[in-house]
Amino acid sequence: MSDLALHLPQRLDDEARAQLFTDARTANTFAETPVTDDELSEIWELARWAPTAANFQPLRVVYVKTPEARERLAALMSEGNREKTLAAPAVALLAFDSRFHEHIPTIAPFRAGIVPTLEEDEGMRTGMASFNSAIQAGYFVLAVRSLGFAAGPMGGFDKAGVDAEFFADGRLHSTLVVTIGHPTENSYRDRMPRLEHSDVVQWV
Amino acid sequence: MSDLALHLPQRLDDEARAQLFTDARTANTFAETPVTDDELSEIWELARWAPTAANFQPLRVVYVKTPEARERLAALMSEGNREKTLAAPAVALLAFDSRFHEHIPTIAPFRAGIVPTLEEDEGMRTGMASFNSAIQAGYFVLAVRSLGFAAGPMGGFDKAGVDAEFFADGRLHSTLVVTIGHPTENSYRDRMPRLEHSDVVQWV
Repeated sequence: MSDLALHLPQRLDDEARAQLFTDARTANTFAETPVTDDELSEIWELARWAPTAANFQPLRVVYVKTPEARERLAALMSEGNREKTLAAPAVALLAFDSRFHEHIPTIAPFRAGIVPTLEEDEGMRTGMASFNSAIQAGYFVLAVRSLGFAAGPMGGFDKAGVDAEFFADGRLHSTLVVTIGHPTENSYRDRMPRLEHSDVVQWV
Repeated sequence: MSDLALHLPQRLDDEARAQLFTDARTANTFAETPVTDDELSEIWELARWAPTAANFQPLRVVYVKTPEARERLAALMSEGNREKTLAAPAVALLAFDSRFHEHIPTIAPFRAGIVPTLEEDEGMRTGMASFNSAIQAGYFVLAVRSLGFAAGPMGGFDKAGVDAEFFADGRLHSTLVVTIGHPTENSYRDRMPRLEHSDVVQWV
C-alpha cells in the first residue's frame, strides 16, 4: 500500500477552512513580531508543490529584505501602498520568469519538444508565464495563511519601474507585491462584499 | 473584543498542510462517488473570500453537468484530456468576465470612478480580468482540496472553440478546465520534479 493510500484527503476542519478562506482577511498592518528567513523559505516549500500547466512553474519570489531594497521598492509603489511596504515585517515581490523554458528539460522532460518553439515565440512564453505565475500567486497567498501569517497582496505599483530597478537584465517581470506578517486585531479594515453566488456560478 | 481577536491565525497542522500542498497531487482518475451540487457550491463558498485586486472578482465558474454539455466540452479538449473530461464526477470550466466592471458599483464602490475608463478600454479590462481570475483559479484548486476532493486542472483545450460553444455572447473567456472528485490510490501518476529553492527564491 502506497503512502497515498494512507492519506486520502479529508474535509479540513472548520477552523482550518475559516483560517484559509472564510475568516481570513487581507492585512494592512502587522504585529511587530519579525518573520524569519526560515519562515519565508517555508512559504515556498508549501506553494511549490501546487500544480502548474505542464509543470512549468514560472513564478519567482524575491524577498525584499534590506532597508535599502525596501526603500527602492516603496518608491515605486502607488502612494497608498508605500507605508505598508516599508512597515511590513516581510515583503515578497512576485514575478514571472520570461525564460522559464530553459528549465523544461529538467522539470518537464516529456515536453522538451516545445523548447525550440518557446525560444522563438516570446509572446507565447509571456502568455503562459503570466497566467501560470498568477495561479501560483494564488497558491502563495494561501501558503502564507497556512503558516499562520496574514498576507497583503498589492498590485498597485509601477511594474515597468520595478522591473528596471530590480530585474535589469529583462528576464523577470513583476506581477504582485505581498506583505507578510503576524496580524493583530487591528490589522484589518471591514471586509468588502463578494458577488452573489448566482453572479459567479452557472450550471450547464 | 471582535471575532477577529478570537481567531488570530495559527500554523495549520501537519495533516492539513500536507493535504493542501506537500502530499496533494493532480488527479487523472477518480472514485465513482458522485460530487453533489451542494458540494460544488461549497467550493465556491470558500474560494470567493480570498482576495483580488480592488475586490474586482473577475472569475466565473461553469459546472459542466449534463451529459450533452460534457460531450460538447470534451470535443474541444486536447486529445489527451478528452476521456478525463468525460469520466470525471464533476467538471468546472473556469472563465473570466470581460465585463466585470459592471459590478464595481456594488462590490467596490470606492473604485466606481474607474468604471468609465474600463468601459472604454477593453485591453485594460482583459489584462486585469485575466491576471486576477488566474489568482482566483489558484484559490479554487486549493478550495477543492480543502473539502477533501482532488482537482485535475487542464489548460489543454481549444479556448476560442470553447468560448464560441459556451459563451456565444462574447462576455466570458475560458481559462482552465478543472476535473473534481474523490481520489483513489490509483488516481495519480508519479509526481514531477519541482525547481530548486535557489532557482525560485531570491533575497535582496
